[in-house]
Amino acid sequence: MAILENINSPEDVKALPADKLEALCAEIRDYLIECCSTNPGHLGSSLGAVEIAVAIHRVFDTPADKVVWDVGHQAYAHKILTGRREAFRQNRKHKGLSGFPKMSESEYDSFGAGHSSTSISAALGMAAAERMKGSRHHVIAVIGDGAMTGGMAFEGLNNAGASKADLLVIFNDNQISIDKASGGLHNYLVKLTTSSGYNRIKSGVWDRLGQRRIRSLIQRVVKAVKRAIIPQRDRVNFFDSLGFRYFGPIDGNDIEQMTETLARLKNIPGPKLLHVVTVKGKGYPAAEADPTVWHAPGTFNAATGERTGKKSANAKYQEVFGVTLLDLARKNSRIVGVTPAMATGCSMDIMMKAMPERVFDAGIAEQHALTFSAGLAADGMLPFCNIYSSFSQRAFDSLIHDVALQKLKVVLCLDRGGIVGEDGATHHGAFDLACYRPVPNLTIAAPLNEAELRNMMYSATLPQYDCATVIRYPRGAGAGAQWRDIPYTYIERGKATLLHDGSGIAILSLGAIGNKAAEAVKMAEERGVNVIHYNMRFLKPLDTEAVDYALDRATRIITLEDGVVSGGLYGAVAEYVGSRQDGSHCRIEAMGMPDRFVEQGTPGELYSECGYNTDDILRKILGSD
Amino acid sequence: MAILENINSPEDVKALPADKLEALCAEIRDYLIECCSTNPGHLGSSLGAVEIAVAIHRVFDTPADKVVWDVGHQAYAHKILTGRREAFRQNRKHKGLSGFPKMSESEYDSFGAGHSSTSISAALGMAAAERMKGSRHHVIAVIGDGAMTGGMAFEGLNNAGASKADLLVIFNDNQISIDKASGGLHNYLVKLTTSSGYNRIKSGVWDRLGQRRIRSLIQRVVKAVKRAIIPQRDRVNFFDSLGFRYFGPIDGNDIEQMTETLARLKNIPGPKLLHVVTVKGKGYPAAEADPTVWHAPGTFNAATGERTGKKSANAKYQEVFGVTLLDLARKNSRIVGVTPAMATGCSMDIMMKAMPERVFDAGIAEQHALTFSAGLAADGMLPFCNIYSSFSQRAFDSLIHDVALQKLKVVLCLDRGGIVGEDGATHHGAFDLACYRPVPNLTIAAPLNEAELRNMMYSATLPQYDCATVIRYPRGAGAGAQWRDIPYTYIERGKATLLHDGSGIAILSLGAIGNKAAEAVKMAEERGVNVIHYNMRFLKPLDTEAVDYALDRATRIITLEDGVVSGGLYGAVAEYVGSRQDGSHCRIEAMGMPDRFVEQGTPGELYSECGYNTDDILRKILGSD
Repeated sequence: MAILENINSPEDVKALPADKLEALCAEIRDYLIECCSTNPGHLGSSLGAVEIAVAIHRVFDTPADKVVWDVGHQAYAHKILTGRREAFRQNRKHKGLSGFPKMSESEYDSFGAGHSSTSISAALGMAAAERMKGSRHHVIAVIGDGAMTGGMAFEGLNNAGASKADLLVIFNDNQISIDKASGGLHNYLVKLTTSSGYNRIKSGVWDRLGQRRIRSLIQRVVKAVKRAIIPQRDRVNFFDSLGFRYFGPIDGNDIEQMTETLARLKNIPGPKLLHVVTVKGKGYPAAEADPTVWHAPGTFNAATGERTGKKSANAKYQEVFGVTLLDLARKNSRIVGVTPAMATGCSMDIMMKAMPERVFDAGIAEQHALTFSAGLAADGMLPFCNIYSSFSQRAFDSLIHDVALQKLKVVLCLDRGGIVGEDGATHHGAFDLACYRPVPNLTIAAPLNEAELRNMMYSATLPQYDCATVIRYPRGAGAGAQWRDIPYTYIERGKATLLHDGSGIAILSLGAIGNKAAEAVKMAEERGVNVIHYNMRFLKPLDTEAVDYALDRATRIITLEDGVVSGGLYGAVAEYVGSRQDGSHCRIEAMGMPDRFVEQGTPGELYSECGYNTDDILRKILGSD
Repeated sequence: MAILENINSPEDVKALPADKLEALCAEIRDYLIECCSTNPGHLGSSLGAVEIAVAIHRVFDTPADKVVWDVGHQAYAHKILTGRREAFRQNRKHKGLSGFPKMSESEYDSFGAGHSSTSISAALGMAAAERMKGSRHHVIAVIGDGAMTGGMAFEGLNNAGASKADLLVIFNDNQISIDKASGGLHNYLVKLTTSSGYNRIKSGVWDRLGQRRIRSLIQRVVKAVKRAIIPQRDRVNFFDSLGFRYFGPIDGNDIEQMTETLARLKNIPGPKLLHVVTVKGKGYPAAEADPTVWHAPGTFNAATGERTGKKSANAKYQEVFGVTLLDLARKNSRIVGVTPAMATGCSMDIMMKAMPERVFDAGIAEQHALTFSAGLAADGMLPFCNIYSSFSQRAFDSLIHDVALQKLKVVLCLDRGGIVGEDGATHHGAFDLACYRPVPNLTIAAPLNEAELRNMMYSATLPQYDCATVIRYPRGAGAGAQWRDIPYTYIERGKATLLHDGSGIAILSLGAIGNKAAEAVKMAEERGVNVIHYNMRFLKPLDTEAVDYALDRATRIITLEDGVVSGGLYGAVAEYVGSRQDGSHCRIEAMGMPDRFVEQGTPGELYSECGYNTDDILRKILGSD
């Protein structure tokens, strides 16, 4: 840390002798590994992008020059170099640093991101602003190959390529699929094309091709070859075709090459793309060997690479989903799985391994994933499409226009609904319930526990569920209910269950957060207060009989949901109560996420912050809140 | 009509002698022009796609083979050929044919669409289903060049290209920007490559290139040329780069070439793309000359090409928006305009003409348009991004993740909020109010009339509006309020206005639909019933003082909004009333769009169908509903 401990801003990076940069990168890696081994984070991507961050801050005049990090979990080195070295020890902690770039956290974070594929659009906006303001600071977007599959990245490229914007896109490609054989030519070409005499050389090469006849022949051959035989390794020309000047690929983990190339590219005008190849997990052998696991490995022993995270006693909802999907698919040949790049995260990899021909990984492309599912359903299949709740916001129009409007039977499983914890504001599944409820032709269900998830998945395949079903459940460990190998039980669409009877006060809960309510209800009972507790199970259709039951017996109704209350279960209950013909009513109290964005922390910290942890619920029941 | 009158299904198209096809196309055009001259529709695109439709139904075994028409307004000829010739006279009419393909209307409509860029994803889903079912029917997506700029189309191409799906994408390119000079070579190549001996010839060409040394030289030249000098006309290789076999371009208005090419392509396996060039408005000189106007020209004199649509006495909201935006931009150099391909439709063309450097047309790319706006705002500009309400569903995550979360000051103007009329279910702005209300850091406003729109746009630029503002207004003519050149008036954020005082019953209305309420209130007054009528102006923040005023004086509250009531103004009011500490309440009755998709018709017909036309409101007030 001899070098890093003196790096407090990009000015310090610029002041270093060039021959110290490699050592700086190594120290950053050691620090990242040290911090992430005890305080988990997105290690793999950030290890791969160390040289990119160092080179950018070495070459460009940040924060006047603007850097937009796509997805953002590759930006740890950037954070460490921009005055947040010590703060990084509190990365992703409650009240600590965000795990992603965040505008309100640092002037060096020109634009925040937790979702993918936004960087080019945002950076293009900045480049346009710089042009209009006449200030002409540089704008750089750093985007990975995964994020490049998102349609929005294409929209950004397509617009940028057609513009005259002075925009540099650094395409951080950490797949291993680059054709090694062509690397030499590529390296040669990038040196040729990034030299300051680029335009002259370009014409020169052409002129040297000689006489008209040969030129004409070559032109024809070029065209014919391009049409007829496009080898895999030439797909990078995709970027040229959109109007970018394409440079690369170069070794993005070679700090000398990175700084030299950026320095050369810096003053070339117009939209340009530098393709850099990096190794995910670079510098930590375990992470290099298994990039999927080490994307976000949890805690580990830095010396041995042994992962030390505790395994929960209860199965995760993800495992329940994955095991159940495979089981249902074995019994019903119409069932197929669709995931936008989250097969491991949502456990669809279980089905993928057993029946690879019936699972489709769409890449990071939520719109496509859901409309592709609609196409499958339109032709007789029964797709289970699993999307993380907050990412499903990308597929909102696909849900409305392609699935719901056409009454296509797609089962949309929303993983990571509600508070997710350390990933923070961009990742909480806050809006799904409230925002999808107004959409017609949807059943919206949220299971209380593992068994309900399993039975909802089963029930959604039956004819009684005659349109699309949304099944929404949280990240992580379940409630401990029996689920494996239990017989499937049909769950009537729109039917709540009474978990506890009482009078005077009622709790209507939706989803797994109901387990906290059940605990609080039990504690209240011990204090002599008997509460009506309904597990609503369905947001849509709402079980109005359950609400009526509560209305008839209670003077206060508490709604509890792990999502924004405005428009959610709270909204649904308030609307129903307000519409009652007989004008009967009672006060309705909302518990759930507030009308503001909730930052990162442990789930427990955030439930408490939002006021719906178990003791908050108890206090609300007792009227002592 | 000698031929067309005997065409009742694709079987009849197949039975025609080949030399009658051109005449059939001409008759279809005459019929389209005849029908659309009196019953307005999307004439231009459909005139251009006549030969595509005839050729598909001639060559493929529809409906077993599946055709997915992107956007869908190019599909009139398809409708006419598939048993809907006479029904087409009721195109876009209430209870008549939808102006778009619609699964529930015909088995020949394999997938519906009113929004763009969905066809490849849906068709790929069908191709995958066919493979799994072992039935192997052909699947064809027809997509225009406009729709190809939508990110979802890219996601579809990217997934299809990497698959082995037997999918044909017909790329209907009706831009005039194709390089004529290269047409001959292209035509040659498409004949070469679509002949049945394609694979053999491909290898043959390569072999003929001769000895190893020459081959190596040519390979190197090909690479160098592709990297260094990519001329505009070679951009089509974009499709190759994504894994498609690219064929074309061919003349898509040449029925013989179209049928021959489709017949040759039919049995080539894998993902393939046929690039066809068509003329928008083909066959009708006025439409060919001005494709923008004739995209959807309204009524016209078929013989003279004179457009006969009546002009409304009142200015359209679109004109108010366009004129006001330019005026504000002249006063504030930070203001810029952003539109996803709707400059004319939303009247941003007014500013575009006056200050082209400050208006950005993103193409059909709503996500990019809004995140690009966020980038502009992050770098100090004040963007007005105008998106049609129903298309804004595509930008939902951009609104949440890029704009609202970062508290960026973007003014998002949602045009065509509420019932739009003849475009039907895919185009009504039904969900914006209800679905965007749960998003934090937003002001959501809806003007009553032209003056309020103008003043809301002005107010949104002021510091008091400290985060993003959504301004939502309907399609078409305003209420007749004075607006042009009136001095700007500040509208307090979240403040309703009392339009009429009374007691016993209250109407809270949001947006321009409030003019219907005002009429009904006046009619009720004439009958001696005095109604409290608030123009709420803001859905978020809700003016709770106005609600309190109504609660204190009325036993019934009616909410009125031109959007789905569930989660919208009705939801907001019900939530507030339910939360009141003192438990005071009253019955709340919702008027607005129901929890089902509303089809096409005139706005008046649809307001009546949904029960919130003026007389419906009056009956509700009088309790006689």
